[in-house]
Amino acid sequence: MKRSDKDLAFMLRYENVAWYEKGKVKILDRRIYPEETTKVLCSNHKDVVQAIKDMVTQSGGPFLAAGMGMALAAYESQNKKEKDFLKYMEDAAYSLSHARPTTNQKMINIVEELYKVGKKAAKDGKKPDEEIFRKVISNTNKKYNRISKTAGYLVDTFPQKGSVMTQCFGETVVGFMVKIAEDRGKDISYFCPETRPYLQGARLTASVIKDMGGDVTVITDNMPGYVLKKKKIDAFTSAADIITIDGHVINKIGTFQIALAANYYNIPYLVTGQPNIKHSHVDSVNIEERDPEFVLQAMGRKTTMPGVKGYYPAFDITPPSMVNGVVTDKGIFSSYDLKSYL
Amino acid sequence: MKRSDKDLAFMLRYENVAWYEKGKVKILDRRIYPEETTKVLCSNHKDVVQAIKDMVTQSGGPFLAAGMGMALAAYESQNKKEKDFLKYMEDAAYSLSHARPTTNQKMINIVEELYKVGKKAAKDGKKPDEEIFRKVISNTNKKYNRISKTAGYLVDTFPQKGSVMTQCFGETVVGFMVKIAEDRGKDISYFCPETRPYLQGARLTASVIKDMGGDVTVITDNMPGYVLKKKKIDAFTSAADIITIDGHVINKIGTFQIALAANYYNIPYLVTGQPNIKHSHVDSVNIEERDPEFVLQAMGRKTTMPGVKGYYPAFDITPPSMVNGVVTDKGIFSSYDLKSYL
Repeated sequence: MKRSDKDLAFMLRYENVAWYEKGKVKILDRRIYPEETTKVLCSNHKDVVQAIKDMVTQSGGPFLAAGMGMALAAYESQNKKEKDFLKYMEDAAYSLSHARPTTNQKMINIVEELYKVGKKAAKDGKKPDEEIFRKVISNTNKKYNRISKTAGYLVDTFPQKGSVMTQCFGETVVGFMVKIAEDRGKDISYFCPETRPYLQGARLTASVIKDMGGDVTVITDNMPGYVLKKKKIDAFTSAADIITIDGHVINKIGTFQIALAANYYNIPYLVTGQPNIKHSHVDSVNIEERDPEFVLQAMGRKTTMPGVKGYYPAFDITPPSMVNGVVTDKGIFSSYDLKSYL
Repeated sequence: MKRSDKDLAFMLRYENVAWYEKGKVKILDRRIYPEETTKVLCSNHKDVVQAIKDMVTQSGGPFLAAGMGMALAAYESQNKKEKDFLKYMEDAAYSLSHARPTTNQKMINIVEELYKVGKKAAKDGKKPDEEIFRKVISNTNKKYNRISKTAGYLVDTFPQKGSVMTQCFGETVVGFMVKIAEDRGKDISYFCPETRPYLQGARLTASVIKDMGGDVTVITDNMPGYVLKKKKIDAFTSAADIITIDGHVINKIGTFQIALAANYYNIPYLVTGQPNIKHSHVDSVNIEERDPEFVLQAMGRKTTMPGVKGYYPAFDITPPSMVNGVVTDKGIFSSYDLKSYL
């Protein structure tokens, strides 16, 4: 795949996220970014597992980190006999893909494929760590290619000059959205709700937009309803954790109430991603609830007095009636026609 | 006015907010409460002006603090000749009532009345500071009486067992709501969105509910839409900065999007307060915008990278069609019939 210098610069940003090089994996610590830019240095794949568990990296980061972790595991076990090597890699694959309580099939598929690449390399007398690393890069490039198409279809819907509200953190699609809009000479301002309690919108999404040269304004999560009207927002867009085949969007908490307000003001809500074949119906989705203590602090400082309780649903569900288009690598689909995508 | 012990205990909580005693005013520092309970000590009424300007106190706090500041100004000038005393008091009244950029008429009326009390006391050979202090207390009692009636009508609408969502900080009405619900044997759980960026909901409203013995859960501002349905909330309620005669509610940013979601789920939105005779129509209301830097931090820690902009509208507007009742000291009115209140 040929990449222009600009594409390469974009690509290099992602080397920053998680990267394998000779017996080490470095992962950007998103928990403290952008206040500090620090990398977590992993000299064993178990450190990578721990880093994924500890939420060091977000969005597509865990997939990339798990892939780099597989390369590292291959490096660790390169001098073992074949049987021991395969056992070691199998264990590593399991640990890396199950680092978080809500493991998804995509993660399992990724590490299984890399396991096979390592196995074949060992058989062919090639270096397994290098072959796995190459596969991770080629997969990432393919993914970027797909997401770049998606972002292109999304940008098609933007006016020549206007403003767009995003929600939470879809790193790659947000990055491509900003880049493609600029490449096409569209003059777009971006508004990011901060996305408490983790502040992904303020800390991560806004940083990606700024890094890509975009004009970005952060607001708090109680402001979208007002800002949509006041700032004459042209479109609301988010990525999704799951898009069910029956057209429901499961995404970071807050998406539903922004979509509802966007509907109220006749502003389109366009979700990017792919319908998830594992979820034909919304009833098969469980909304993860996280440690309630985390909503009782902000940037590490306690916000409530003792005895006050917290509640932390991490996602919400936006019904298909509030979704004006599902933007995919194959074009824009109606939320009532997602079978056509598959 | 006769008060039971329980009422007195409730009352005493407010001595905590702002209190005058022999040449000093003490104001609870709400900026750091409840992490720390510290009082700002004012030994001159100009310190009180500065404290109000610096947002040391919130909700009804500035009115109480300004009143106590008038008592302090009278103490400072008690040995002056009548003409100089009156000039001094006039200047103090002006400074105290104009401490914040958006001064309201209510504040001006309060200090003007206290100025007259001081003037009369001086003429009658009584101690002006003591007379002013007494007037502040009697006004506060009257206000509590009115607000307690309002809270009573609000609690009438609650089920015997259920849950209520509040928004932002109406200290006295929230306190009475919890107390009256308990007195009547109603078993109510309260949910408070945290109200970024100042976190009044988490820091102040939740503390008042907890102090009054209520069961309270804090959520972040992106969660109300989800929680209203998930926790089967029975009513959404807020106080208001302004209720226009034509039925619009101007309240802390976020109220609109919660009301919209409450409407979507057929949950009533009940606003407490009094229609504001100065605003017959919503068009006369300006929405204050504050320092955008403040949305780019949480509890004093920066949340964004350099170059990311902020936007901070402090209030929003909820239209009468989303308001199911305006709860006043005279009963509950339709948002389309507020002339009947006046």
